[in-house]
Amino acid sequence: MVKLVVMYGHPKDPEAFEAYYSETHLPIAAKIKGLSKVEFTKFVGTPDGGKPIHYRMAELYFESLEELQNQMATPEGQAAVKDIPNFATGGVDVMIGEV
Amino acid sequence: MVKLVVMYGHPKDPEAFEAYYSETHLPIAAKIKGLSKVEFTKFVGTPDGGKPIHYRMAELYFESLEELQNQMATPEGQAAVKDIPNFATGGVDVMIGEV
Repeated sequence: MVKLVVMYGHPKDPEAFEAYYSETHLPIAAKIKGLSKVEFTKFVGTPDGGKPIHYRMAELYFESLEELQNQMATPEGQAAVKDIPNFATGGVDVMIGEV
Repeated sequence: MVKLVVMYGHPKDPEAFEAYYSETHLPIAAKIKGLSKVEFTKFVGTPDGGKPIHYRMAELYFESLEELQNQMATPEGQAAVKDIPNFATGGVDVMIGEV
């Protein structure tokens, strides 16, 4: 199994991020085909009580690296990728991981 | 569900990291109680063919934030935390996330 890991930095306006993320971005991303599982994480702290370095993480699981690459290259995959700059005002790191 | 997310930077010596991680660190971390699930990820690339910013990620799932905090405060939890500097030569970010 592989996953696309999207790490979001802290946005300039968290309320605006949350509204756009849930109402606009996730419906666009939901059209990506071939997903085995998705998991959305909101970071709430660190073990020593500090502020987490990242704000949110989205994990999109696929059966294989080839499937991930094929699906992310489709119009649906590209639409989700191209939408990220519309709300990710704290920056974003996107990585492919083997689980 | 909550998870402790450990993001490792690229180590100075990946072979030494992998050996220590599998032979020493994971057996120490396996003694942590109350885990609902664990997932280990090795980053292999980015969608545009670049080098991923992080090297590895470990995710430790617990039923609740209280359970996470209680278990990480035990001798078993603290032993795992204190072992991290012994091999994480590329640095580490540890965050708590709500799933």
